[in-house]
Amino acid sequence: MLRIPRLSALIAAVLLAVCGVSHAYDKPVEKKVFSMPSYVTVGGKTIQQVAVGYETYGTLNAAGDNVVFVAHFYSGTSHAAGKYKESDAAPGYWNSIIGPGKPIDTEKYFVVSADTLSNLNTKDPNVTTTGPSSINPATGKHYGLSFPVVSMRDSVRVHKALLDSLGVKKLQAAMGASGGSIQAMEWATVYPDFVERVIHVIGPGFSVTPWVIGLLDVWVMPIKLDPKWNNGDYYGKGEPLDGIAQALKLVTLTARHWGWAEKTFGYKLADENKKPGDELGNQFLIESTLQKAGMARASTTDANNKIYMAKANQLFNVESEIGKIKARILFVPASSDLVFPPEFAQKAAEKFRAQGGKAEVFVIEGDGGHLDGVLNVAKAGEAIRGFMAR
Amino acid sequence: MLRIPRLSALIAAVLLAVCGVSHAYDKPVEKKVFSMPSYVTVGGKTIQQVAVGYETYGTLNAAGDNVVFVAHFYSGTSHAAGKYKESDAAPGYWNSIIGPGKPIDTEKYFVVSADTLSNLNTKDPNVTTTGPSSINPATGKHYGLSFPVVSMRDSVRVHKALLDSLGVKKLQAAMGASGGSIQAMEWATVYPDFVERVIHVIGPGFSVTPWVIGLLDVWVMPIKLDPKWNNGDYYGKGEPLDGIAQALKLVTLTARHWGWAEKTFGYKLADENKKPGDELGNQFLIESTLQKAGMARASTTDANNKIYMAKANQLFNVESEIGKIKARILFVPASSDLVFPPEFAQKAAEKFRAQGGKAEVFVIEGDGGHLDGVLNVAKAGEAIRGFMAR
Repeated sequence: MLRIPRLSALIAAVLLAVCGVSHAYDKPVEKKVFSMPSYVTVGGKTIQQVAVGYETYGTLNAAGDNVVFVAHFYSGTSHAAGKYKESDAAPGYWNSIIGPGKPIDTEKYFVVSADTLSNLNTKDPNVTTTGPSSINPATGKHYGLSFPVVSMRDSVRVHKALLDSLGVKKLQAAMGASGGSIQAMEWATVYPDFVERVIHVIGPGFSVTPWVIGLLDVWVMPIKLDPKWNNGDYYGKGEPLDGIAQALKLVTLTARHWGWAEKTFGYKLADENKKPGDELGNQFLIESTLQKAGMARASTTDANNKIYMAKANQLFNVESEIGKIKARILFVPASSDLVFPPEFAQKAAEKFRAQGGKAEVFVIEGDGGHLDGVLNVAKAGEAIRGFMAR
Repeated sequence: MLRIPRLSALIAAVLLAVCGVSHAYDKPVEKKVFSMPSYVTVGGKTIQQVAVGYETYGTLNAAGDNVVFVAHFYSGTSHAAGKYKESDAAPGYWNSIIGPGKPIDTEKYFVVSADTLSNLNTKDPNVTTTGPSSINPATGKHYGLSFPVVSMRDSVRVHKALLDSLGVKKLQAAMGASGGSIQAMEWATVYPDFVERVIHVIGPGFSVTPWVIGLLDVWVMPIKLDPKWNNGDYYGKGEPLDGIAQALKLVTLTARHWGWAEKTFGYKLADENKKPGDELGNQFLIESTLQKAGMARASTTDANNKIYMAKANQLFNVESEIGKIKARILFVPASSDLVFPPEFAQKAAEKFRAQGGKAEVFVIEGDGGHLDGVLNVAKAGEAIRGFMAR
């Protein structure tokens, strides 16, 4: 009985290691919703009728202790692995490391991923979130800017209630990329006895850096410039799609790297017959491509939720609480990351070790920038597998 | 007679080297204007009544060959050194290396700096430029977006006419920071027999990088989002100051570095009584400071000129013309530069040497980012002095 899954796991591992081929999680993924009648934020505000979407891969064991929680990044969702149906264009974003026989082995672990509060992608039918775009039960209207400020810790506390409802007793790992790595660190800080390991991919360490506080501010600035934003009161009136698109364009560029730009676009033109020197509107390919990608993603994004999510990330700072953390930490920076460059992971690892903690660092080499932690996380696959085995 | 200036030069050099103290250029700087009845752009468009401001430091020799041209950066002006009057708050931006006894020694060299076409700072009384903000003599109205696209090469060709009018026969060096370094390289490409040396500070090498093509696009994006921009037709109607301020904020952040953010702001709040976690509008100090700086600078900036200047920088590409360049080149990148990181200068130097050219590289060490090439250029002072002597 045991040999068949073991064999499939071995094949998957070999394929991944040798060819970079990754199989999708092999069962259809089902989206579910977790609800709480009310939730009190870290800041002491009560939110009624909180709901977040989640998905799971693998099977919870009887002890409830074979669990890995995957927290999503700033503009991401809980769709970390697998497909909802065969015909899906692509599997979840970390499918290369989550699945049978993969570093986060779904034959062994019960993997849970959940949408944060104020998730950006409110018009993605597979996302459920509670944020400024939600209807305030007290008024019957969208919250807009009357929604309370939420931090990443708030999302973590809601997700803890979700795990409790599922019967989870222990996390073998809390993990995530970027904003997800922040949540993973919050997990280990707020629930130190619950979390065995943290896998902190392309993260800042124990606090968001001042530089990224500034970056998060400019990442939402274009939304605020769009007159349709209307100080957050746009529901039913036409959404600030231009502002969102430009904001997403800016996020993408700054989350990449000059090496990526050179390889992907070089000096190619958007239209070979329209030289940029001839007319002000004639573009290079990098301009038109980022513009189109921004526009495409704007249609599923809520402007206010994006603003609140930026704030939530700005608030991450557990420097004064490091002593609480019992988990072992694997830091996985990306060598070309311009958002959270590897030096911050290295410093955080040293700081944690200096306080008696156990920390390892594995660097994803590449020139894809910050997004290497999402798109090329497979390069850290064996490091993650080894860390999970220790 | 000779000993007094020599002594003052020595004192200035010692003060600069030992204390980082720099003396202002010791004579009042006078702003002048150079005019051409018409100019035909690289793209073949005729612009009537072209005028650019310029200033000079030092004295032209009889042979007209003791000249250094200083080209300004993207958001800069021709005010490279000295003060217009004693009470000026600050001298020109490169005052630390230009003056009597300094690396660009005004006892020896006649230094000229000129405003580019489409200079951003149209409301600075010391700037004269011709660009979209200018009155089209044919219509009596502002050009707006009817102004032809201009490249950095266009500015260089206008500046060559200026130097001809002054009797300049030879440049000992064409130099500049960032967009100014681009112009310096254009000088050596277009006028190879005229230019002995290029000092290319925080520049890209022989072409703007694809990454910076994208960056220049997002650097003007906020202007285009501001409804007051009105597709460039805002003269006399209320200018897009919010868009300009946000654009300048973004330029400043991306032209800096995480080390600078950490040292300058850390986690300080804009108002210690207004915690960012309490209200959406409560800011960190880095946010409020960059915002205020952007607003302050917006008042002297023309939106359309900024857009055209971004385009001019995007168009820089002399890779196919390197063989023409006869000048020796000193590349001066900054170690923490995230716009044109040092690897590009190194690669360009290698490429130039491989073609038989003479190139040197001196790296400004620091954590101030791209702006180290403007604010900390004195660190390269002795390297520049040595290069000028060879």
